[in-house]
Amino acid sequence: MERQSYLVQMNGNGGSGVMHHGNGIHHVNVNGSLYPAKAKSRRQRWEVKPSDMANNTLNPIRAIVDGMKLTPNPDKPMIALSIGDPTVFGNLPTDETVRQALKDAIDSEKYNGYAPSVGYLKSRQAVANFYSCPEAPLEAEDVILTSGCSQAIDLAISVLCNPGDNILVPCPGFSLYKTLAVSLGIEVKLYNLLPEKSWEADLQHMESLIDERTSCLIVTNPSNPCGSVFSKEHLQKILNVASRHCVPILADEIYTDLVRCTSPSMASLSSSVPILSCGGLAKRWLVPGWRMGWILIHDRNNIFGSEIRQGLVKLSQRILGACSVVQGALEGILNAPQSFYNNTISFLKSNSQICFNELSTVPGLTPIMPSGAMYLMVGIDMGHFPDFKNDVDFTEALVTEQSVFCLPASAFEFPNYFRIVVTVPEHLMVEACGRIREFCQRHYRPRSSDSSDSNDLDQ
Amino acid sequence: MERQSYLVQMNGNGGSGVMHHGNGIHHVNVNGSLYPAKAKSRRQRWEVKPSDMANNTLNPIRAIVDGMKLTPNPDKPMIALSIGDPTVFGNLPTDETVRQALKDAIDSEKYNGYAPSVGYLKSRQAVANFYSCPEAPLEAEDVILTSGCSQAIDLAISVLCNPGDNILVPCPGFSLYKTLAVSLGIEVKLYNLLPEKSWEADLQHMESLIDERTSCLIVTNPSNPCGSVFSKEHLQKILNVASRHCVPILADEIYTDLVRCTSPSMASLSSSVPILSCGGLAKRWLVPGWRMGWILIHDRNNIFGSEIRQGLVKLSQRILGACSVVQGALEGILNAPQSFYNNTISFLKSNSQICFNELSTVPGLTPIMPSGAMYLMVGIDMGHFPDFKNDVDFTEALVTEQSVFCLPASAFEFPNYFRIVVTVPEHLMVEACGRIREFCQRHYRPRSSDSSDSNDLDQ
Repeated sequence: MERQSYLVQMNGNGGSGVMHHGNGIHHVNVNGSLYPAKAKSRRQRWEVKPSDMANNTLNPIRAIVDGMKLTPNPDKPMIALSIGDPTVFGNLPTDETVRQALKDAIDSEKYNGYAPSVGYLKSRQAVANFYSCPEAPLEAEDVILTSGCSQAIDLAISVLCNPGDNILVPCPGFSLYKTLAVSLGIEVKLYNLLPEKSWEADLQHMESLIDERTSCLIVTNPSNPCGSVFSKEHLQKILNVASRHCVPILADEIYTDLVRCTSPSMASLSSSVPILSCGGLAKRWLVPGWRMGWILIHDRNNIFGSEIRQGLVKLSQRILGACSVVQGALEGILNAPQSFYNNTISFLKSNSQICFNELSTVPGLTPIMPSGAMYLMVGIDMGHFPDFKNDVDFTEALVTEQSVFCLPASAFEFPNYFRIVVTVPEHLMVEACGRIREFCQRHYRPRSSDSSDSNDLDQ
Repeated sequence: MERQSYLVQMNGNGGSGVMHHGNGIHHVNVNGSLYPAKAKSRRQRWEVKPSDMANNTLNPIRAIVDGMKLTPNPDKPMIALSIGDPTVFGNLPTDETVRQALKDAIDSEKYNGYAPSVGYLKSRQAVANFYSCPEAPLEAEDVILTSGCSQAIDLAISVLCNPGDNILVPCPGFSLYKTLAVSLGIEVKLYNLLPEKSWEADLQHMESLIDERTSCLIVTNPSNPCGSVFSKEHLQKILNVASRHCVPILADEIYTDLVRCTSPSMASLSSSVPILSCGGLAKRWLVPGWRMGWILIHDRNNIFGSEIRQGLVKLSQRILGACSVVQGALEGILNAPQSFYNNTISFLKSNSQICFNELSTVPGLTPIMPSGAMYLMVGIDMGHFPDFKNDVDFTEALVTEQSVFCLPASAFEFPNYFRIVVTVPEHLMVEACGRIREFCQRHYRPRSSDSSDSNDLDQ
């Protein structure tokens, strides 16, 4: 930090004064003549380049999708099963109580000013009350409100990791972890999820990746892109790994309420492992654009202590967090009727079942039935589709021929699968599955080694 | 990046399949037994510490205010002239058209989903239309919407600067620049503003600080904390410095519309210097909590080119930006009636004048008349106040005795001044100034060297 001190003679209404400014006292002429032009090296021409951080902020989904030639079949209207935004088709509006709560907050005129950087106390208390349970109690001070779950994840990674550290990230997994980490100089190590075990984590693989620089284990449950939900027993095993190696957990639990089974939070299963649980309004309340997220700090063993809490507070002061009127509405929003949640869940369940049933009988595809979130992963047996090099090729051709767009799972670093978003209206889900079947039937080839014993009814 | 490949034998409804996953093909037992526990160094106990970035995120205002003993006089109600939030006293509500625009956006149900990371095109177009002028034309693509002006500043610094670079920041100045830069490992060099020249920048000082690692010159106009507004001529001189040294400008113009004089934008005065102008709804529209900010990219000389634009887009994808319903309301918000703006400006002008007139006749104080923003800086002639060590001491005692809190300008790295926020209701402004007078009269001492010739009527 360079800091020039000066001494100013001033004639103001308050009389002449001597201002001792800064630590040392230099006598400097106020017209600045004591700063002679130094013979400093000076830029001779414009040369403005983006920072390394900007260059290292990579979005794998964009990188892959931007490289695809997406030209729909003009004879078929496009059906995009690619976008993880439940609002795009208009069939899943948020609840009237949610909208009304926000309008009431606006009309109150109490929430136009700056909220504290970690959020209004009252709003933090509302979130604490909503998620507190006997096994993992929460107070207002355990809640930090953020600009969407993305900022929650950003703050959590930023407070736990230094450049050169590494984090463990599920594969397939949500691409943002890597985007954020790499932009901060943090290494990403991918631990495998096992499709044949309903996407449970490969615990031995996970454990083998941990070293002294591992500063955070990210667990996404329910999973994007898999739609899987870990059992209590499996979560306990993951917690055991974290505990053995003393690695704190970032639990991305944004989909925690969109499940069709009991799904305990990670924090409710351990009082020894410190956990930052990230969530928000986006999915359960169907308003991802409102950018209301939170971090729940679970630290009953006092491992994070005041230092990590203070670190989160400091980081939250960089750009502040969520929109104040949404914060003001939060208590009302969380009180949306149970029927609203139930309707969403039963719609997603029904659509998942339709999609799974349809694709289960398509030759060369292996859909994996989800039990939460709003996604379904489908394996492509590439050996039966010699027309295509990989999942990117396959899904690109699916757009060209059938105007159905599914995200190739290469975007989640898991090639030879694609992800289907099950939030589309039912009739579009049925239509899309029919078109996928037609596409696969057209391109399916019996494998040469299979040709003798396979019974290719569909060809 | 570590990535384990595997080969999975799967029996699904689609028939058995062989998934070749990853680049190489390893045969790995799915139960993970091929990952033997390595004799890797492993953490034996919990040791979770906040990152360097968290530790280096410093808020000078908090650091100073938290260290003050702020115990108001129980006989006098507290008047806080310290908070740069125009909404706290309730006397400056936003306009009804602004509230209605937001409620309409909610009711439309069109803005609940994810907006593009740089904002809806329509909303960017609305901002471009609002600020475009013949001298500095703007298109939608020149606008990036952000979560408040803070995120705009964060993105602008982040895209232009690498760790080890330095930025030039006004002193006194808004503390966030330093908070953000230091947390990113960027050095901050302070260039002096000159109180005796209505807070114009000391250009020679500014120029003397520039070196090859100077990647950005921050200009705050109108100024927080000074309330000063640079003349066209002075802005031109600053642009000349930037041009001579090929340093791009970050123009913090959040207060651009709260002025009582003509105040051209920096971009309107130069087509050669590339400028990122940061602004938002916070001040003119009196809704700082709504977190709606923007970057206006002015680059008519094509210095930033597509690279900086792409860098900004990439960085915007880290956590996304402003709340979607506020974005949806933006066009309506910008169309608030001129009378709303005029009322705010004339109120601030009147209150500034009252405050300046009152404090001009207080012995030992030198208020400096502002012409914009919502602040007024007051010099303390410490030599006349031997009871106090510095501005922090002085303002702390002002709370203890008079229940008036003004921010010591040490918080802006400019000791021996304090900042007054002029958004309080008029009667409180008058009352606060009276109490400041009483306080100063009680503690004012003629300087020993003055004692023979001073005429201390007030003592």
